[in-house]
Amino acid sequence: MNQETPWLQVPAAPIDEDARRRAEERQTRLTKPLGSLGQLETLATRLAGMQGSDTPRADTVHISIFAGDHGVAAEGISRFPQSVTMEMVRNFVRGGAGISVLARSIDARLEVINLGTVEETGPLEGVTDVRIGPGTANFVQGPAMDLHQLALAMNAGRHAAERARLAGTEVYLAGEMGIGNTTAAAAVACALMGAEPEELVGPGTGLDDAGVRHKAEVLRRALDLHRGHMDEPVECLRRVGGFEIAAMSGAYLACAQMGMPVLVDGFISSVSALATARICPSARDWFLFAHTSAEPGHRRVLEALSARPLLDLGMRLGEASGAATAVPLLRLACDIHGRMATFDEAQVAEAL
Amino acid sequence: MNQETPWLQVPAAPIDEDARRRAEERQTRLTKPLGSLGQLETLATRLAGMQGSDTPRADTVHISIFAGDHGVAAEGISRFPQSVTMEMVRNFVRGGAGISVLARSIDARLEVINLGTVEETGPLEGVTDVRIGPGTANFVQGPAMDLHQLALAMNAGRHAAERARLAGTEVYLAGEMGIGNTTAAAAVACALMGAEPEELVGPGTGLDDAGVRHKAEVLRRALDLHRGHMDEPVECLRRVGGFEIAAMSGAYLACAQMGMPVLVDGFISSVSALATARICPSARDWFLFAHTSAEPGHRRVLEALSARPLLDLGMRLGEASGAATAVPLLRLACDIHGRMATFDEAQVAEAL
Repeated sequence: MNQETPWLQVPAAPIDEDARRRAEERQTRLTKPLGSLGQLETLATRLAGMQGSDTPRADTVHISIFAGDHGVAAEGISRFPQSVTMEMVRNFVRGGAGISVLARSIDARLEVINLGTVEETGPLEGVTDVRIGPGTANFVQGPAMDLHQLALAMNAGRHAAERARLAGTEVYLAGEMGIGNTTAAAAVACALMGAEPEELVGPGTGLDDAGVRHKAEVLRRALDLHRGHMDEPVECLRRVGGFEIAAMSGAYLACAQMGMPVLVDGFISSVSALATARICPSARDWFLFAHTSAEPGHRRVLEALSARPLLDLGMRLGEASGAATAVPLLRLACDIHGRMATFDEAQVAEAL
Repeated sequence: MNQETPWLQVPAAPIDEDARRRAEERQTRLTKPLGSLGQLETLATRLAGMQGSDTPRADTVHISIFAGDHGVAAEGISRFPQSVTMEMVRNFVRGGAGISVLARSIDARLEVINLGTVEETGPLEGVTDVRIGPGTANFVQGPAMDLHQLALAMNAGRHAAERARLAGTEVYLAGEMGIGNTTAAAAVACALMGAEPEELVGPGTGLDDAGVRHKAEVLRRALDLHRGHMDEPVECLRRVGGFEIAAMSGAYLACAQMGMPVLVDGFISSVSALATARICPSARDWFLFAHTSAEPGHRRVLEALSARPLLDLGMRLGEASGAATAVPLLRLACDIHGRMATFDEAQVAEAL
């Protein structure tokens, strides 16, 4: 912990267990065999508990996209040049990226936050500029961030969550953009889980087998360098994380503290969620998991979070794209919960 | 085959392979690593081929719910009384059933077709009445339908598909209601696949283990009775199917013949789709599969169709509920395909 971030010690808000139980009881009275809507039923009952409401909703959705560059990109662990991080930031706000299209389709607010791309462009319409530096330092040579940079990154996440909360957000999504960030996320996951690089490394945006082996070797050098200094989750984020990974972890923690449901995206977001759950175990109660990514390490991270995601469509784009794709399922679950008739109302006979 | 149903011999419409290839080529130019949107990419390219369009859409969705009762219910193979079939028909049109809520939420047209409930109520607002009889005959004692009844049921499906086509439907969904219909569907699947009852039987609306064993035993008696007479898929539908199972099979075949994409629901719908694919193998090209049902036999039927469904949420309600839940994924896939920027348009560097 850090004197600049005392808020990290605030516990998560409690779940409204009465509302959750009332929702479970209502599900038994709806005109369908009990359990026959599977995860749509548990989604509704969990949201009821989180929102303390008999009519949970997922209409107002906020998506924060955190962008940042990574010093470890110098090790040649991505197929894409580092300039792509900033190029994609422009693409986000111009409306041409995957998440731009998805956000419009699901009628969600999209906020793009530049935490520190290598390229500096000056103000860009639609981008919240909170640049911490020109990317993180190369964590194969030293910590990715100093303590002050880590605090700035986590605070940026908290501030995004607070803005969302004040705007009446019912479900919060975060996503990321940063060339090299599957390497950083795998490093954080290895440190948090005590896993080996080979268990969590994957092709990212499309490395071949030799590229994945090289990435694992880079990861091993990083873990060797920082060994003995990564007992604390916040320190893991500082040493081998990234600006956007730390920001999402801060945003997720702030959501849990304020009592705002989170729909977690893919591999990198789940590593941020795991760090949050290690900082504050009860924060886990506020997380729904959207999808299982094609990035192979994701399954291990989901297991560590005891998560059962909604979708498994072979997606691996990041940018909160998997989470946005799952939003309609939340809405349908809420509609079913609130609008189906009970056996009594419909005069339908129950099971013998 | 049957003189009353010569249309069963009409082949499926061809897929527009040029449109499909153009869609695949466009996917390589969108600002994302190739393949990173997984099944959302293949959904869009398949729909492009089916619709012969560079801008595939799934906005206009039609749902036909076919209801019918089953003579085999006399064998005690369901937890619910047979009166529930008609009670649920009323619930569908009054708006209180799961599919009623889902249809409104996804802005789909919902048509309810009574093919033959035991209970006769006279005209009911919102229900298309094409009653063939007071349920099928008990197929443990003889064929479920005579040839004429089978033709009526399959024609009712075709007519529903034709109405949908004329109304400009972009994606067609069918669903069913009929106490006892997982037993009939399992019987048809056993006959079509040469499988044993134990491989395809399941709890349906909620049988316990003893109930499932009894259901398998009933199935075995039926298969013994009809053995040697079930080489033809249409004859399987007649001997051990149901009105709604035959109607969905007819509807799916008509969709393929007219070139209208089908989104198949769960266990019972997939058995209808399998029968259709056995009647007309090229019809399979027109089927998308929405979800894997919790009804255990569904996985075997999906394998027989080489199907990889979109969702696996533990749903087992029927009523096209799984298919309706997957409709937003089709829409998002179409939006991404049509609206994302290409690398050139967005001036984003491609992979090194």
